[in-house]
Amino acid sequence: MKARERRLGLPPWLREEDPEGIVMSARIRLARNAAEAAFPGWAGNEEGERLGRRMLSVLESLPPLAGGTVLRMEDVGPLERQILHERHLISHELTGKGAGSAVLVAPDETVSVMVNEEDHLRIQGLVSGKDLPALWTAVDALDTRIEEQIPYAASPRLGYLTACPSNVGTGLRASLMLHLPGLRLAGDVEKVVKGLGKLGLAVRGLLGEGTEAFGSMYQVSNQRTLGESEPVIIAHLLQIADEVIGHERRARQRLAETRPGLLKDRVMRAVALLTHARIMSAEEALDLLSGIRLGLALGWVKRLEWPELDELFLLVQPAHLQKQAGRSMGPEERDEFRADLLRTRMAGVEWV
Amino acid sequence: MKARERRLGLPPWLREEDPEGIVMSARIRLARNAAEAAFPGWAGNEEGERLGRRMLSVLESLPPLAGGTVLRMEDVGPLERQILHERHLISHELTGKGAGSAVLVAPDETVSVMVNEEDHLRIQGLVSGKDLPALWTAVDALDTRIEEQIPYAASPRLGYLTACPSNVGTGLRASLMLHLPGLRLAGDVEKVVKGLGKLGLAVRGLLGEGTEAFGSMYQVSNQRTLGESEPVIIAHLLQIADEVIGHERRARQRLAETRPGLLKDRVMRAVALLTHARIMSAEEALDLLSGIRLGLALGWVKRLEWPELDELFLLVQPAHLQKQAGRSMGPEERDEFRADLLRTRMAGVEWV
Repeated sequence: MKARERRLGLPPWLREEDPEGIVMSARIRLARNAAEAAFPGWAGNEEGERLGRRMLSVLESLPPLAGGTVLRMEDVGPLERQILHERHLISHELTGKGAGSAVLVAPDETVSVMVNEEDHLRIQGLVSGKDLPALWTAVDALDTRIEEQIPYAASPRLGYLTACPSNVGTGLRASLMLHLPGLRLAGDVEKVVKGLGKLGLAVRGLLGEGTEAFGSMYQVSNQRTLGESEPVIIAHLLQIADEVIGHERRARQRLAETRPGLLKDRVMRAVALLTHARIMSAEEALDLLSGIRLGLALGWVKRLEWPELDELFLLVQPAHLQKQAGRSMGPEERDEFRADLLRTRMAGVEWV
Repeated sequence: MKARERRLGLPPWLREEDPEGIVMSARIRLARNAAEAAFPGWAGNEEGERLGRRMLSVLESLPPLAGGTVLRMEDVGPLERQILHERHLISHELTGKGAGSAVLVAPDETVSVMVNEEDHLRIQGLVSGKDLPALWTAVDALDTRIEEQIPYAASPRLGYLTACPSNVGTGLRASLMLHLPGLRLAGDVEKVVKGLGKLGLAVRGLLGEGTEAFGSMYQVSNQRTLGESEPVIIAHLLQIADEVIGHERRARQRLAETRPGLLKDRVMRAVALLTHARIMSAEEALDLLSGIRLGLALGWVKRLEWPELDELFLLVQPAHLQKQAGRSMGPEERDEFRADLLRTRMAGVEWV
């Protein structure tokens, strides 16, 4: 694995193991804006670019960003933008931005900062597992260092000011990516999503806002950013997420007791199609990899390491696939290349 | 194969080979009514039963029915009715009939007669392949023998009279069951169906009128029964069917040249799911067996005989499945039993 990780630059949030395969990754982002400057959506091009350059020169030298990667959006091609988005390093919003916008990524990819997105700054942290408190410590430290150099727009009554009112206050969005195939198979996902809404949490798909829950992966995050401290928001999210994890665990147990064929069918169909299909869409690939993830957790799929599997969740997405192929490909060609790649990667896998 | 054929009573129309797997079977049926008697839909119960008994006693002794099977519908349970329907020996209409209705099946199952269906008599012939002229000779001979004993309702101007006006005249419906996976994959089935309609032919699904075309199987039959002789109707059907067969052949060739991955994907997905799934509906099973049929024709599926495959098309249907299991099963249990049966039957199959 080591060699392959280096070669493909597997991000750190894909490098740990969870024997149940329920928790995938944890994410935190802070929305911040420079004081006494127009928000990106209001600033003219020149004004935005000038501020962007100024912020960038500050950020480049700050630990832990120093020594990392700086990508000015004007220099980033369409494929690379999509890759950054698939790796959760930039938002969909930033994929459409030009001069003045940028992303800085720390050497270990755990923290990163987007410049001139919807807000002047989006400070992000992303790790595997669910250790949001440790991630908060890292992001909070970077936030403090930045604020010493770039005074933030803030109101004594409301807290940090942001372009969208839904982020005002802490500017914090904390989230966990959860893999819930048991709840999905049992038909209970909708019930859980409704319950989370009542508890002030939002549920989204794999690629953030407005995307479908491909591969039974659900991103659970706080909705409120105002009136509670960051540690309280994070503790609340973790507490509810633990309940969801418990629901998923029980859904799997219940299925194993009452309809074992349904679980086995799900896993075996995934194995079958990933090892035989000649044409495969990204949506189907994610859905089937979710079945493999379930099979790995249940011990039915063998000779496959968690990081190898997690890497496939990234590799099957359109931009990563084209990077892997070393060429631009249309949808039909991608679907054949994806099926070939998956068959090759699944060749050594065993199942019972 | 011989032993299995005997054990399961494989019908004769499943016993031949077609290296392309396009033509499955040929069928002829004649609608006839006894002269000076009310049609089944108009006759009272007593009148219908009396006539039914009288016709039955005549038919029982006629070759080639003599020595065959006589099933009075009042003695036939729901599962057995469904089995007869799945074997194309009785119509959907007859599955709902009681006392006075019956079916007589010749020892080799090639010809059979339904009594008190929509018409007093429905004389049927069913063989593998497309030799409708030979089948017509057999059915015509039986029809002549019956008419010598039971004078038919007829009009000098119109020909034979039938319950439904669409059958008046010859009372003939001739059909071929065609397997058209190439046209379906290429998305050309609708065009072909529309063209057949213009040429006076009807297209239906696997189980006759009003059923969907599961497993890419289409029943092509004449619509007109009036104003043309039987040999002309049959020759016309055969001529058009040969054109459809040519279309299917060319669709496969074109796919092999332009999108070989699509053909291979279709076959390999069928192999994959039939050898791995734990739960499978009848609809999905027929669809996947169609993929295997295509694979066999293309030489990609090996160590499977045509009759073994054709038998599976019958065995996966609900009533046959329950007969095979030796017990009545609900839909969930059937879907698991069906997947298990298919995995077992596919165990020795190889593919490239």
